[in-house]
Amino acid sequence: MSSEEKQLLVIDTDAGLDDAQAILMALAAPHVEVVGITTVSGNVNSKQVSKNVLRLLKAVNKLEIPVYTSSERTITGWQKPDDYNYHGYDGFGDVPDDDPPDFNLIQSKHGVQALIDLSKQYPGKITLVALGPLTNLSLVIRLDPTFGERLKSCFIMGGNYKGEGNITPSAEFNFYTDPEAAHIVLSDLGCPITLVCWELCLEHSFPWTWHKELFDLDTDIAKFMKNLEKNTIENFYQKQNFENYELADQLAVAAAINPKIILKSSEVYCVVETKGTYTTGQVVVDWKNKLKEKPNVTIITSIDKICIKNLILDAMKLK
Amino acid sequence: MSSEEKQLLVIDTDAGLDDAQAILMALAAPHVEVVGITTVSGNVNSKQVSKNVLRLLKAVNKLEIPVYTSSERTITGWQKPDDYNYHGYDGFGDVPDDDPPDFNLIQSKHGVQALIDLSKQYPGKITLVALGPLTNLSLVIRLDPTFGERLKSCFIMGGNYKGEGNITPSAEFNFYTDPEAAHIVLSDLGCPITLVCWELCLEHSFPWTWHKELFDLDTDIAKFMKNLEKNTIENFYQKQNFENYELADQLAVAAAINPKIILKSSEVYCVVETKGTYTTGQVVVDWKNKLKEKPNVTIITSIDKICIKNLILDAMKLK
Amino acid sequence: MSSEEKQLLVIDTDAGLDDAQAILMALAAPHVEVVGITTVSGNVNSKQVSKNVLRLLKAVNKLEIPVYTSSERTITGWQKPDDYNYHGYDGFGDVPDDDPPDFNLIQSKHGVQALIDLSKQYPGKITLVALGPLTNLSLVIRLDPTFGERLKSCFIMGGNYKGEGNITPSAEFNFYTDPEAAHIVLSDLGCPITLVCWELCLEHSFPWTWHKELFDLDTDIAKFMKNLEKNTIENFYQKQNFENYELADQLAVAAAINPKIILKSSEVYCVVETKGTYTTGQVVVDWKNKLKEKPNVTIITSIDKICIKNLILDAMKLK
Amino acid sequence: MSSEEKQLLVIDTDAGLDDAQAILMALAAPHVEVVGITTVSGNVNSKQVSKNVLRLLKAVNKLEIPVYTSSERTITGWQKPDDYNYHGYDGFGDVPDDDPPDFNLIQSKHGVQALIDLSKQYPGKITLVALGPLTNLSLVIRLDPTFGERLKSCFIMGGNYKGEGNITPSAEFNFYTDPEAAHIVLSDLGCPITLVCWELCLEHSFPWTWHKELFDLDTDIAKFMKNLEKNTIENFYQKQNFENYELADQLAVAAAINPKIILKSSEVYCVVETKGTYTTGQVVVDWKNKLKEKPNVTIITSIDKICIKNLILDAMKLK
Ligand SMILES: [Ca+2]
Ligand SMILES: [Ca+2]
Ligand SMILES: [Ca+2]
Ligand SMILES: [Ca+2]
Repeated sequence: MSSEEKQLLVIDTDAGLDDAQAILMALAAPHVEVVGITTVSGNVNSKQVSKNVLRLLKAVNKLEIPVYTSSERTITGWQKPDDYNYHGYDGFGDVPDDDPPDFNLIQSKHGVQALIDLSKQYPGKITLVALGPLTNLSLVIRLDPTFGERLKSCFIMGGNYKGEGNITPSAEFNFYTDPEAAHIVLSDLGCPITLVCWELCLEHSFPWTWHKELFDLDTDIAKFMKNLEKNTIENFYQKQNFENYELADQLAVAAAINPKIILKSSEVYCVVETKGTYTTGQVVVDWKNKLKEKPNVTIITSIDKICIKNLILDAMKLK
Repeated sequence: MSSEEKQLLVIDTDAGLDDAQAILMALAAPHVEVVGITTVSGNVNSKQVSKNVLRLLKAVNKLEIPVYTSSERTITGWQKPDDYNYHGYDGFGDVPDDDPPDFNLIQSKHGVQALIDLSKQYPGKITLVALGPLTNLSLVIRLDPTFGERLKSCFIMGGNYKGEGNITPSAEFNFYTDPEAAHIVLSDLGCPITLVCWELCLEHSFPWTWHKELFDLDTDIAKFMKNLEKNTIENFYQKQNFENYELADQLAVAAAINPKIILKSSEVYCVVETKGTYTTGQVVVDWKNKLKEKPNVTIITSIDKICIKNLILDAMKLK
Repeated sequence: MSSEEKQLLVIDTDAGLDDAQAILMALAAPHVEVVGITTVSGNVNSKQVSKNVLRLLKAVNKLEIPVYTSSERTITGWQKPDDYNYHGYDGFGDVPDDDPPDFNLIQSKHGVQALIDLSKQYPGKITLVALGPLTNLSLVIRLDPTFGERLKSCFIMGGNYKGEGNITPSAEFNFYTDPEAAHIVLSDLGCPITLVCWELCLEHSFPWTWHKELFDLDTDIAKFMKNLEKNTIENFYQKQNFENYELADQLAVAAAINPKIILKSSEVYCVVETKGTYTTGQVVVDWKNKLKEKPNVTIITSIDKICIKNLILDAMKLK
Repeated sequence: MSSEEKQLLVIDTDAGLDDAQAILMALAAPHVEVVGITTVSGNVNSKQVSKNVLRLLKAVNKLEIPVYTSSERTITGWQKPDDYNYHGYDGFGDVPDDDPPDFNLIQSKHGVQALIDLSKQYPGKITLVALGPLTNLSLVIRLDPTFGERLKSCFIMGGNYKGEGNITPSAEFNFYTDPEAAHIVLSDLGCPITLVCWELCLEHSFPWTWHKELFDLDTDIAKFMKNLEKNTIENFYQKQNFENYELADQLAVAAAINPKIILKSSEVYCVVETKGTYTTGQVVVDWKNKLKEKPNVTIITSIDKICIKNLILDAMKLK
């Protein structure tokens, strides 16, 4: 398949180990070409995310993909403290890298400008996959309101559709971290948006047997990923006795590169609460169209788990 | 069964036709005694609600039950305009009453004071059933913080548990109408609270065949109710082609007088949003106990529909 | 002057040493009769305030004035922790009372009910002076919307008119402690309201020479007050090197019992912010009538300091 | 004076007739060089503002100054309807232009990028004068957090310091139009900021005799300005019987190019409310340093009116 015919992906990420797996899924898909990766502050700050992404790209010999760093803060200025999180202090499992990549490979162009420029370089061709807080996308929209018109579509991991959150009782991490950005993107992006929400992730987590099957593969990249994940598995899953292995960003890439795996979805009008005492960052879904607004989002409500497993299996065999 | 042994109910209502049916269900239950009905502004203002309740009580020869009017406004002062709603301009279907009850039967004591006094008259005995906005209960709590300790339990029709509303995209009517009151009651009432939320109602609506079975009964009260409901059925259900007949307050009374019909429920910590742009009045449920608070509410998530139908059937045969 | 002809005052207070002085001013005025004192949680909780008031009344042989306790919490439920404040842990300077009054003198009737009953006992006669958070007044309004119509007028110490606060940068203590109550009272009380705002107090503080003149008087009550105030003077004024002695509640009673001392005032429409991040409790004054609402408040902007000093002088000679 | 030695100004404007006069003041100052003008949506949208600015520059033969257009919307997405305002539908008095400038002179570079680039071209040299909503500055800060470090200083017309507004009771137009942007700029700009607030403008308005003296000058530019202003004078000032001629942006340029005219000012910590019901866009000034934050703003509280008049006089003689 020539580059001409491939599906072009731009990934905006706050990697993050689920981001890492999700990026590998995109890289492993033969019909997909990742033409740029922009990083955003989320799990850790954007600079560290860029380093993480380079480390991942080096592991699969894809350092030719340009990586762009963005700003430290959210659109209204909040800065998440870089303390320990689900993915460790460095966002990538806190496992030392004996042979780090050349960090000068990080592009000097700002990620926001890169997104604008890529959309102009490949008008109508790009599927944008957003795996972190939506800060970059929101700034792009403010600087270039026609950005969305030049995209093919946008898949977002973020938000929720039954009021259940993972960072607060009612908000999902990516949307909570920059709620104004999430509000801007859902309201003003201007291309088809598909949401992979937190409840979907909860309802499609993997049994641990599947996890073992994937991470015990005898491949370099499976060993690389297993190594990065070991602290998280120990400190988080085992200590808290999780029944299942939770996925998030993986579902967004899966849906983006293989829409057939979407089993059920609803086109609805959504907004993001930005001023609640308890609900900031929550998605409000207008199921019964009380607000008389056109649908602005497709929410996936069921997805083919076996297909996702197979896409990760392919990713874990990537050379 | 002597009065001593009966379950004592106090009903706080903004009747409303579902309130009317719910009250009939309580009146028809042989093990239940309704010792007082307080009215609250909601569907219509409290004064009109009291008139509606008297009309209902007259139809079943129960005018000995005291009815207490309360204030026009919500706790922070909002006043719902008395315009047309689901239950008509008068909240009771806008069907003229040829033989109205004596409205002097409405007690001069304020409903808030009545609630306090009833709780003192029957300490530990009263099941309070709240079928409207929670204004009265919130004022009682402010005036007498020990009120809840003297109740047996409280069943509330209101709120939601998956972020879906009926008056806004994310809020249910009773909680939306007085969100501060709902917040106060869930936080400070101090007796076991069971919630019948909007999503439960949606998931347990009746097929129209059941509706016909209930309202075509050859009894005086079935005819009375069918007459009251005719405009609503025509203007609301038929015009909008509803697939099912929706119940609300009926479920709260059913659960209160027959807890065995509760098939599934969860004890959780909940708060009510009062400051959101889009989410004011929404219940936030802390399913995963992120806030480390003790459960303050039992949310019913499944209920026995057949039993509810039978309770309504009994109500429709009340003489 | 017969009781018939006197100006009748009801004082709602969270005493507080400035409240104490203010109450003395009212008691010392020959044309004034204080017919009841209701207490409200503010500086300390309502129960403690009632004890403080009784202690003061005993000192001036006025234990015949009925004192009514109210609820612990604000209208929406916040409860100020009873920690150290400007007036000490007990709100009255933390000076032991060797000969306490009989606390059984505190009335069993709730303060909110007492306010309603007093307004009915003396319709059109009562000047209500509010010296603490407006919780009680707001609850009265909800329970009896016609309350204000039976008052002569209401003087309130609270709020601000240039956006300067004493508890937060933009809010005054009384309004900040129960902003919803302040909002309700300004919006719905329904009798003429005069506000003594924080900036007025700041601009009319006393030189220390005046303070000495007042508190060094050789009278029992001056000694009593000086004793109560000694910790505050030491811990607060001296440590922080205050240039002047600040008054607050004194100005509200002064204006209430002697309106001629008001040198300048404006009739304006005001609302209280209840939802700001930084501005909750602040008064918003519509100086240029942009909202096209009728004035609901008279804000005093200049007052006769000499007169106030003389009223305090009279108070300090009360026997 | 060589260009090297001059004070370099960049003006961010939503012109607006007071902006126009303010820009003329800068252009007329012999020690000042305006190196760029960026436009922002405010009185009208950014594109129209750029046209207005070109029209003004043409009138004084300064078309060599580059003018940059920016986005239509505020940072969080609100878009002011371009309806009639104080400065007419076109923001410039709705007076037809018989000989319009070549609008192709508007630079293709986005205003936000231009601000970043100018700060790099003249590091440490630029005085930034902001005469409209702070959208552009806030976006610059998000894209380049070191921007402020490269500025000499920033003068802003916007906000208030006594809680009095001109667009709502408590908010000034520029800050109200994009409150989040104002919040970001005050919090994060990172160079000395001087505020010309609305109350300062109110207290330093001109008598009509001064207005006549300035606008009746027999110069081309005075005639040009008088012509632009005629509708505003008629529709606004005369109909509403204004006692004085109000200035706003003129004071900010005056202070920026001639700081000696600042008679009194305070260094204080300020924040902008973004979530109030009534106070959104209002500046909260921490006069007594309750928040223990370092001052981030110098607020001018008194300014030399005669000097301002003379600066406008110079501007009205500009050729
Ligand atoms: Ca992620
Ligand atoms: Ca009801
Ligand atoms: Ca006080
Ligand atoms: Ca301007």
